Amino acid sequence: MSDQYSAVGYSSTSIGMGSKPAVLVVDWQLAFTDPRFELGGLARLHAARDNTAGLLATARARGIPVAACFTAYCSSKDMPLWKVNAVRKEFFYGHECTAMDPKIFHESDFTYCKNAPSMFFQTPLITWLVRQNIDTLFVTGCTTSGCVRATIVDGFSFGFRVQVVADCCGDAEEGPHNDTLRDVGRRYADVIDRAAAERHFAAVGTAVGAPDRKA
Amino acid sequence: MSDQYSAVGYSSTSIGMGSKPAVLVVDWQLAFTDPRFELGGLARLHAARDNTAGLLATARARGIPVAACFTAYCSSKDMPLWKVNAVRKEFFYGHECTAMDPKIFHESDFTYCKNAPSMFFQTPLITWLVRQNIDTLFVTGCTTSGCVRATIVDGFSFGFRVQVVADCCGDAEEGPHNDTLRDVGRRYADVIDRAAAERHFAAVGTAVGAPDRKA
Amino acid sequence: MSDQYSAVGYSSTSIGMGSKPAVLVVDWQLAFTDPRFELGGLARLHAARDNTAGLLATARARGIPVAACFTAYCSSKDMPLWKVNAVRKEFFYGHECTAMDPKIFHESDFTYCKNAPSMFFQTPLITWLVRQNIDTLFVTGCTTSGCVRATIVDGFSFGFRVQVVADCCGDAEEGPHNDTLRDVGRRYADVIDRAAAERHFAAVGTAVGAPDRKA
Amino acid sequence: MSDQYSAVGYSSTSIGMGSKPAVLVVDWQLAFTDPRFELGGLARLHAARDNTAGLLATARARGIPVAACFTAYCSSKDMPLWKVNAVRKEFFYGHECTAMDPKIFHESDFTYCKNAPSMFFQTPLITWLVRQNIDTLFVTGCTTSGCVRATIVDGFSFGFRVQVVADCCGDAEEGPHNDTLRDVGRRYADVIDRAAAERHFAAVGTAVGAPDRKA
Repeated sequence: MSDQYSAVGYSSTSIGMGSKPAVLVVDWQLAFTDPRFELGGLARLHAARDNTAGLLATARARGIPVAACFTAYCSSKDMPLWKVNAVRKEFFYGHECTAMDPKIFHESDFTYCKNAPSMFFQTPLITWLVRQNIDTLFVTGCTTSGCVRATIVDGFSFGFRVQVVADCCGDAEEGPHNDTLRDVGRRYADVIDRAAAERHFAAVGTAVGAPDRKA
Repeated sequence: MSDQYSAVGYSSTSIGMGSKPAVLVVDWQLAFTDPRFELGGLARLHAARDNTAGLLATARARGIPVAACFTAYCSSKDMPLWKVNAVRKEFFYGHECTAMDPKIFHESDFTYCKNAPSMFFQTPLITWLVRQNIDTLFVTGCTTSGCVRATIVDGFSFGFRVQVVADCCGDAEEGPHNDTLRDVGRRYADVIDRAAAERHFAAVGTAVGAPDRKA
Repeated sequence: MSDQYSAVGYSSTSIGMGSKPAVLVVDWQLAFTDPRFELGGLARLHAARDNTAGLLATARARGIPVAACFTAYCSSKDMPLWKVNAVRKEFFYGHECTAMDPKIFHESDFTYCKNAPSMFFQTPLITWLVRQNIDTLFVTGCTTSGCVRATIVDGFSFGFRVQVVADCCGDAEEGPHNDTLRDVGRRYADVIDRAAAERHFAAVGTAVGAPDRKA
Repeated sequence: MSDQYSAVGYSSTSIGMGSKPAVLVVDWQLAFTDPRFELGGLARLHAARDNTAGLLATARARGIPVAACFTAYCSSKDMPLWKVNAVRKEFFYGHECTAMDPKIFHESDFTYCKNAPSMFFQTPLITWLVRQNIDTLFVTGCTTSGCVRATIVDGFSFGFRVQVVADCCGDAEEGPHNDTLRDVGRRYADVIDRAAAERHFAAVGTAVGAPDRKA
């Protein structure tokens, strides 16, 4: 592209995929997928949620570890100063909007609560990744221009190879979704689609009879 | 605005300014401000650098603490996998491109080295903020859609009030700069200009004879 | 003391208490206080738990914020490599041993799950502290030479004033308890007792009709 | 051992060594090894420094990565509230006491500045470890009951296998050194000696003509 970024050396290499992938799943909780909730009726998110569910089935069948998070707080005192009404009013421990979407949840995944946009910010995710020697992150979830983007930046910052699975990420509108892929694709991550991720899982994963149960 | 975001409760409040501000200065190092370097010739960044220099003079005269960072690495092994050529090739300890811009540097500031997009990621910034009971962050620097944005998200995540000083933030092109202000302004921060920041510094700061010297 | 440490300048000042205290409560969960569990029958811990319960009643009556944690994991994959049998076998989400001790739990506290020795390690505690402008931490819990010590070191590292409430901290034996107080008292924290903490809460707190309910 | 700890399941397993080791070197800077400085004349530290130098020569010859840190601050404002006189008075950027000991420093190592007891606390160490898929940490340095211990706890918390190289760790007195090995050996780490570490490096490392140069 003949833009100012590529002219000065942005986008000058690709990241590539290593040998130990994991899938990160950002905030596919009912707040974003169930129309009963204020943020839950956005069609683009539903489509990306369905694509993520398909990707996760492939990942689990190949033994690729999956970490999934939801956002919830104890009270307003441990909550950052959100400008999003639904978060301030409803994202509390035990509220139904914090339950994982049933198309996404699986008991073999590492499912945990986070308290900031990034899946990494002050969460046990880094320990789970280190314990399994993961080198490559496949990022999915919502919203692309919010929590997904923050997760991409932190995964990159910790030194992982980051692959953004574009059709498994959803946002309220197409503009901010695409702007995010443009910005992170120049600096931090490769932007791929679900099919490319699944080909990689088939290549490096191991067919398993059934997902591992929690130990 | 009649967009999908405001329709579902984004942008539904403002953050406001507290009583203990600090200014954060992202990456005004020669790599981005000196045309001898690959990333150093972008006019929008020079203008934002000049605005930042003016804001910092006001802040220091009022006793408002300033933290400034540059990005540098020991070798490629402690470096995230950057797609930006100049970072991979030149951002090493002691390289001239990592020196602070002389219009920005002041010995009374807290100036330190960071190793990821965010000024907070694995740096002593949080300790410096806690030690001084800071409650509000005024964010400046470059690039808006890269390290500035990552710093905004982390400042928000730690629980601070975040004010983005738009005319003290620079990017290669206007599009990604504006896209970033739109996205963070919906969720995490207020977007203001230098004049508004300086009015606040005048209101809450204390005129000082000269900036404090390092202890 | 005529030891090698004080001879070279350890213990050369005291920390003191600021104006915005909070109480930190480490791991008073049933695993450590209910004799049905392997670690639950140690008399020194029961005594310290009772002292902590008394301290918390005073803190809550004076409006001093309280944060309490328990340790639990999703599976062995997000768990550090513990050499303690009970942690490896039972400290899982939902297991009864991870429930808070009923003498300690109060719904007005910030109660959350941690996954490492320190109450700070990858947890939302720092955000809760920043949001409330806390400057001084009063540390209680178990075990003194394990998770309490790790919490002291992290609280110090983030820049807070740290006060260790010795008679509200418990360990299996007196030796490691005292060794810890000696080591941290030389470097990072003041070692006080419950009575001193309560005098400070009376001095800086505000009598409240009843603890605030969660927002 | 017939103590209360082993009776309830502490020390109930060993950690073991993986296939990708790294050596961590805590604070072998002149402040602790040069008698011109207040903390620099302690004989136990000099002996452990010499052992560490020997271990590092073996590690480098086998291609085992080495990360070494020193402690320094910009001013008192980014410094935790240390009770140790020398840290408050002299541990500043550029002060001679912050230079690495010449028996320890090697340009092929990752040498960086830290600002808290732990080598991990808000430093780039975790990125350097993730980038190289390290699974096992061999910890050396000073002081055992201070910064070494904090580093052990954080390495454990991040999910690494931790091996403490006892004769490469030094403290002012034997008591706190041994107390630390006792406490961490029950919970978080294996306690070994230099000879055991070197045997492992010989087994898993690769003889190299000369250490890799940076970048």
